[in-house]
Amino acid sequence: MKNTRIPDETIRRLPLYLRGLQFFADQELTNVSSEKLADFLHISAALIRKDFCYFGDFGTRGVGYDVQTLVKQIREILKLSTPRKAILVGAGNLGRALLAYPGFAAYGFEIVAAYDSDPEKIGTKINQTLILDIKTLSKLKRDGIGLAIIAVPAEVAQSVADLIIKSGIRGILNFAPTYLSVPKRVKVISIDIAIELGRLPYYLESE
Amino acid sequence: MKNTRIPDETIRRLPLYLRGLQFFADQELTNVSSEKLADFLHISAALIRKDFCYFGDFGTRGVGYDVQTLVKQIREILKLSTPRKAILVGAGNLGRALLAYPGFAAYGFEIVAAYDSDPEKIGTKINQTLILDIKTLSKLKRDGIGLAIIAVPAEVAQSVADLIIKSGIRGILNFAPTYLSVPKRVKVISIDIAIELGRLPYYLESE
Repeated sequence: MKNTRIPDETIRRLPLYLRGLQFFADQELTNVSSEKLADFLHISAALIRKDFCYFGDFGTRGVGYDVQTLVKQIREILKLSTPRKAILVGAGNLGRALLAYPGFAAYGFEIVAAYDSDPEKIGTKINQTLILDIKTLSKLKRDGIGLAIIAVPAEVAQSVADLIIKSGIRGILNFAPTYLSVPKRVKVISIDIAIELGRLPYYLESE
Repeated sequence: MKNTRIPDETIRRLPLYLRGLQFFADQELTNVSSEKLADFLHISAALIRKDFCYFGDFGTRGVGYDVQTLVKQIREILKLSTPRKAILVGAGNLGRALLAYPGFAAYGFEIVAAYDSDPEKIGTKINQTLILDIKTLSKLKRDGIGLAIIAVPAEVAQSVADLIIKSGIRGILNFAPTYLSVPKRVKVISIDIAIELGRLPYYLESE
């Protein structure tokens, strides 16, 4: 299985496939056809078959794909079974929502610490996670931490990112509505609500 | 100006351009070249020029684009200057974060009401927004409401969406980690943190 050959566009769809497969697994189905999965995910069956070809699973005509085998393969490719430690920077409303969010654990992430600059928040706990002083972020021992989640205002996001990168962390999940300039070795995935929101009115009918 | 000819991929980038142009406007620049904007946004200058051609602004060689004119054009195309009312369904951690989020107002959205099923929350206020009983959602008078924001658990998202559509609302911003099946006339934009998160480990180095 040569992961390096899988294009980014296919990687982008793998978590989606995993969700669909999990749905069928929960219904105790052992096999699923590309058509059935396509119907559930609103993706074309041909695209699904093409994507699955990258990891050598061609399914069985008339039977479909083995659900558990596919789940295992996709989880392996995405490296989801490796537990990873994460830190959160910014314990405002969004940070609190993220600390309560079950999705991180589902993908093997454990948020081991949260940072903020507000003296009122430092030293308190949110969902069992201790809020630390952001000034101590530079003293963070990387210690297996693979991901930093940025949930701070746009104005300070770059300086926070610089601190994070200095500590040796190579993965950033950015919720601040701004671009982060990072070295090539650092992977940033940005989730920008404002950018998504900005294109919504275009599609709304006029009142 | 024929908006109908602008492809979805270009529409998707317009809020991004707007952010870049706003940055240069804040620095009191009157003109900006496609190269400068490209550099700021990490998008190719050729793509920017191609996108801008769709709304007939070719810039001036050696001078670049007029920042204010472009901002005005993009806001018009995206219909951002039209004030719109929105409702929020789900007043949990994410819902609270969204109620505090300044981005909605920046794009002309005003959250006029929030709904939840929790008796402890119903009747209370979050950031001046009254939390109403979700059972009364079916009695909602559309009354110029163009958008509903779904921030409920995945299991109830579809039934909430059905209620919303029944009330006549045609735009949905969905934060629930699930697909929504909706009629063609309804536009759904989904922001799915889990799906983004699921592809992150693939790019992280092994510890």
